[in-house]
Amino acid sequence: MAMKGNAVYAQSGGVTSVINCSAYGVIKQAMKSDFIENIYTGLYGINGVIEDKLIDIAQESKENIEGLRYTPSAAFGTCRKKLPSLEENREEFERIVEVFKAHNVRYFFYNGGNDSMDTAYKVSQIAEELGYDLIVIGIPKTVDNDLPVTDNCPGFGSVAKYNAVSIKEGSYDVESMHRDSTKVFVLESMGRHAGWIVGSCGLNHTSPKDGPHLILFPERTFNQDEFLGKVEETVSKIGFCVVAVSEGVKTPSGKFLAEGGTTDSFGHAQLGGAGDVVANLIQSELKLKKHNALLDYCQRSGRHIASLTDVNQAVACGEKAVQLAGEGKNGLMTIIVRESNDPYQWSIGSTEMTNIANKEKKVPDEYISDDGYMITDDFRTYCLPLIEGEDFPPFQHGLPDYTRLNKNLVPPKT
Amino acid sequence: MAMKGNAVYAQSGGVTSVINCSAYGVIKQAMKSDFIENIYTGLYGINGVIEDKLIDIAQESKENIEGLRYTPSAAFGTCRKKLPSLEENREEFERIVEVFKAHNVRYFFYNGGNDSMDTAYKVSQIAEELGYDLIVIGIPKTVDNDLPVTDNCPGFGSVAKYNAVSIKEGSYDVESMHRDSTKVFVLESMGRHAGWIVGSCGLNHTSPKDGPHLILFPERTFNQDEFLGKVEETVSKIGFCVVAVSEGVKTPSGKFLAEGGTTDSFGHAQLGGAGDVVANLIQSELKLKKHNALLDYCQRSGRHIASLTDVNQAVACGEKAVQLAGEGKNGLMTIIVRESNDPYQWSIGSTEMTNIANKEKKVPDEYISDDGYMITDDFRTYCLPLIEGEDFPPFQHGLPDYTRLNKNLVPPKT
Repeated sequence: MAMKGNAVYAQSGGVTSVINCSAYGVIKQAMKSDFIENIYTGLYGINGVIEDKLIDIAQESKENIEGLRYTPSAAFGTCRKKLPSLEENREEFERIVEVFKAHNVRYFFYNGGNDSMDTAYKVSQIAEELGYDLIVIGIPKTVDNDLPVTDNCPGFGSVAKYNAVSIKEGSYDVESMHRDSTKVFVLESMGRHAGWIVGSCGLNHTSPKDGPHLILFPERTFNQDEFLGKVEETVSKIGFCVVAVSEGVKTPSGKFLAEGGTTDSFGHAQLGGAGDVVANLIQSELKLKKHNALLDYCQRSGRHIASLTDVNQAVACGEKAVQLAGEGKNGLMTIIVRESNDPYQWSIGSTEMTNIANKEKKVPDEYISDDGYMITDDFRTYCLPLIEGEDFPPFQHGLPDYTRLNKNLVPPKT
Repeated sequence: MAMKGNAVYAQSGGVTSVINCSAYGVIKQAMKSDFIENIYTGLYGINGVIEDKLIDIAQESKENIEGLRYTPSAAFGTCRKKLPSLEENREEFERIVEVFKAHNVRYFFYNGGNDSMDTAYKVSQIAEELGYDLIVIGIPKTVDNDLPVTDNCPGFGSVAKYNAVSIKEGSYDVESMHRDSTKVFVLESMGRHAGWIVGSCGLNHTSPKDGPHLILFPERTFNQDEFLGKVEETVSKIGFCVVAVSEGVKTPSGKFLAEGGTTDSFGHAQLGGAGDVVANLIQSELKLKKHNALLDYCQRSGRHIASLTDVNQAVACGEKAVQLAGEGKNGLMTIIVRESNDPYQWSIGSTEMTNIANKEKKVPDEYISDDGYMITDDFRTYCLPLIEGEDFPPFQHGLPDYTRLNKNLVPPKT
């Protein structure tokens, strides 16, 4: 029989349209379980644990909990805090265990990407060292889709759908206007060093007119002359050109197309502006009228156009985490397993968190066309089921009716 | 009895999510009529007339015609062609009448904004001078919502909804991230010299946390120190700040915040970049981490999140245009009349095209708060019904199933 105790769920890293779906899965499954007594969540991720600021889920209304399934962003607040190594900062890890102990927390569910799995793994290590019985389970989350082992990451399907829909609509726009107005439309996508998101734009390219006509992957070095030649060729062939560019594209000298000059607390360069750079090049070098869009946060919080597949998988990853905990498993992260492509079938499995921590999965060569500017059929087969299905949120007064939680805290005990 | 003959419908100016809904209204109503024999549409707006390139609607499938109701952009192609005055360019206007005559076109429906109504009016004038019986009816269209007389413009409700949804989702994002990441999120909206679109973002500001917290209207001169002070105040109060900025905001010297340096063929400066300017100021002057989004064309072609009210009004404006033509009316544009606010009720009326041509309706003072940075309840009462209701398009393989017409041309006769 599983040990009885309380559970903490916390969110980490950049938000997605469906991270709250995973929270929903954890909470609903925990409520059904016979081993989790109280469910708390960290206010602003692991910060809430360190500061003994735990949100009491029992004080949230049923409507608020149900609303999690439809609400983008991180409902409990998230963090960009990467804990240093155990050697460097033992106190902070011991502090986490101290707070867990004080609140009789025996289950810790951490919902994040590769950096977060690193943190979660260290928490499980220190608890073991200190002889405190704690089960730690990771739940994947990242729009970048760059975690290894799992077939795909919750959050990716929805951002992919948002990007593919946006480039479809932008393509229709420039196609109908190009005769005496804009000739080139550039859309910048997120995704850092991995081209999964920018590649998803390619799902819309099913006929010569459907943009994007060119994709700039971070997995390929930017070749200015070649690229501009291809833009010119496309415009002369069909009259216009739609370009999808990843924020992470680099020049031959290894610099980002546009470096913001600032870094986040993970030490990653804050990117953005690649779309401007590309659009300005097109205008200055080819003298073609251009427009460019930067979807920025809207793409990763665009719950109104979430993928139903993504929503279902995010919920299932949360539920499975609680089931694994009930089985006494420790140090695992739930993963999505592709069972078959036709029909698309999936299940939820698990892997050691150490298989995930600090690793990055980029778009493989066989998913990118030989010339480097388009997705292959393999990418399409992989990605298309992930954007399948709609799951519109409820609307009120013309806007999505998203939830904002009360976030009442459990009285601190440390 | 109305004179029998053929009809030409053409689209002009920047596209919207629902201009094809008006086309749908015209075509369906014309098919039902007993006075319109064949329906043609101009390939790329008035260009198609001048070049005798008329699309034959009879050669489009029923599915294509029905699909118009769900498809953004200009399905027949649009133009940014402003015809010069009759005195300066009499031949071009005579050419239009020549093509109409050759194809026995007795009805001309022109779907556009204030520049387009100017063109349509001149066409009706020259036809009269030449003694050619032609009925010209205008149908309003502009995301900018800046046409006079009509209560609102088809296209605006949907771009307003897209903006309000986007800023809601971006707000949720930064709210959940702000503790140790981005503090300020800036969204740039279209709208040129009128602040209707950027104002629509304000519909989401119904509690202190719901962004935008500050709106930069083109109707108000940008005051850098005052603005930055308000950003700082908001961040110190709630931890983050969301700003909606119009592309048309000007500095005290009368310059656009960011001037692209290029102009479209109407002679309007090509705008864009105001969001970058504002975001960069926030970073450099306040040392706050910022992110900014530029929705660009995606906002005006975002049919997937169109307003049902807007769709219905766009269709109705098209239908009414054909009805007016059948009554022998000439030189009118259909308009939307607000019958009541509570409940919101509307009807379709008409006005002389000369009341529309080359005029601009900006956001009135009573719709902007005294401090200049927020909408008033009057704006809310005006705008909220316009974003009401959803009208999701059909989806296939995860993407909206938009139509692309065959565009088979009628054999040229000139």
